[in-house]
Amino acid sequence: MNEVDLIAKLRPLAGPAGLQLMDDAALLDVPAGKQLVISTDTMVEGVHFPAGRIGGGFSERLLRTALSDLAAKGARPIAYSLNVSWPTGRDARWLDGFVAGLRDAQSAFDCPLIGGDTTGGTATLVASATVYGLVPQGKMVTRSGARIGDRVYHTGELGLAEIGLAVVTDRPIEVDGAMRLRAEEAYLRPEPRFVLRKVLRQYATACADISDGIVSEAGHIAAASGVAMDLRSDVTTGASFGDDYELLFCIAAEDEAAMIEAAKQLGVAVTLAGEVRAGQGITIDGTPASPAGYRHRL
Amino acid sequence: MNEVDLIAKLRPLAGPAGLQLMDDAALLDVPAGKQLVISTDTMVEGVHFPAGRIGGGFSERLLRTALSDLAAKGARPIAYSLNVSWPTGRDARWLDGFVAGLRDAQSAFDCPLIGGDTTGGTATLVASATVYGLVPQGKMVTRSGARIGDRVYHTGELGLAEIGLAVVTDRPIEVDGAMRLRAEEAYLRPEPRFVLRKVLRQYATACADISDGIVSEAGHIAAASGVAMDLRSDVTTGASFGDDYELLFCIAAEDEAAMIEAAKQLGVAVTLAGEVRAGQGITIDGTPASPAGYRHRL
Repeated sequence: MNEVDLIAKLRPLAGPAGLQLMDDAALLDVPAGKQLVISTDTMVEGVHFPAGRIGGGFSERLLRTALSDLAAKGARPIAYSLNVSWPTGRDARWLDGFVAGLRDAQSAFDCPLIGGDTTGGTATLVASATVYGLVPQGKMVTRSGARIGDRVYHTGELGLAEIGLAVVTDRPIEVDGAMRLRAEEAYLRPEPRFVLRKVLRQYATACADISDGIVSEAGHIAAASGVAMDLRSDVTTGASFGDDYELLFCIAAEDEAAMIEAAKQLGVAVTLAGEVRAGQGITIDGTPASPAGYRHRL
Repeated sequence: MNEVDLIAKLRPLAGPAGLQLMDDAALLDVPAGKQLVISTDTMVEGVHFPAGRIGGGFSERLLRTALSDLAAKGARPIAYSLNVSWPTGRDARWLDGFVAGLRDAQSAFDCPLIGGDTTGGTATLVASATVYGLVPQGKMVTRSGARIGDRVYHTGELGLAEIGLAVVTDRPIEVDGAMRLRAEEAYLRPEPRFVLRKVLRQYATACADISDGIVSEAGHIAAASGVAMDLRSDVTTGASFGDDYELLFCIAAEDEAAMIEAAKQLGVAVTLAGEVRAGQGITIDGTPASPAGYRHRL
């Protein structure tokens, strides 16, 4: 399979802004009153995803994790572009799976392909998804707005992806069958929390998705906001691995009840993870923590 | 050097939309009456750029070639994002050079960094630049507008980059010193033809930059426009290599004189390369040509 073959396979994924992947560029409209939110993620096979798996898992996880950043910003996804470089001799079935995984993920979020670049000749498979979303003017939820006294919450269940990776890589792990399925799903198909975007835009003072572990992510928000954060040990225990792509966000104490009720109505569990304090850095139950992430562990 | 170090080095390159590279996303404004043009290029060390060179040449060429696509669309550049994956043990000086090359190129075109992703752990250095530009609504120059009877022109001098690559890789080549310098410059620092963007928007029916050789690029325009193209052999001879990133464009015959005068006033040489005909495919002096490109030859 060469580049021309792969582009032909990708062409059915193209949305109107992608000009049938026949041009050098995509042409995107941003409606008046909206701003464009852009985020990009690179996945390296053998570093961020196990080697030897079929391509569908790789690409679906790639696009979903990239989209998760848009969800954290309160944005609605509208398009993505793709850069993929693959090793000489890569199995055509792998690349078919790669295309199928993209199709599944983009269909789930109504987010078409609008362009990209494909190259051969690398020793490692490397792919990047750049995602585009819209927010109402001035409404993007940043990392930098957390205020002293805010409550810190996370969505969903942390730690599932770590179990899921063990399942996917056939490492011995003592969990029952239902948990195996749930954990594998969490690792391969993390759910960008777009359903919460209006809740976040209304209430969140800061938000990020948890890609590198909750302590690391809390550290990013604290640094960007110029504050400290104290996390609860019952939340951080077993949540250092990251890769769950749940959201970590801050809200004013007076908005707590309304946010919890709104999230419940939308079917998303939220858990109190800590609070924002004066100072800098992260503590866990008052004890200084290291914000080191674990991104590159497989 | 790790990811955190590299991001710290990249931070001074960030424009306002990049939020100091402290967030998960960039936030871009597209003014009313404008559309956003997006293009992306991936460069693999050892495939699209010689291995062993300092990083500045790699990154400057990467950003300039990506920007060249925006120039071909008649767009004005406003920002870029970057994905870079590098091999374990990559020299910190190489990465310093990489950052310096980006700084030089983005300064030349007033086009700041707004985000990206950096990863280690690949066997090959792979970098992608995704560039963002603006065009007035409905004014992007596509590949698909060429009409039967149009004249085909190219900018600048074709074939220089091929000589430049020979110079850069120390291959024996019989050219004088002045030509060596010009050719090396053409290879390492191709000039996106932004100076022509208003001329293109006014006159060009179709345009693309010549990345893979003039015959290949003419083939893309012809296919996208549903026409054939006949090229002049005195232009195609020695121009199959590509990598010059000059522009290839079509204009109506009645606009020819005005376009030539405008380009001359702007200091850009243009050369008649052929004409658009009914049918499909590319001929050279009437004889069918293969549109195969040469992208991956080093």
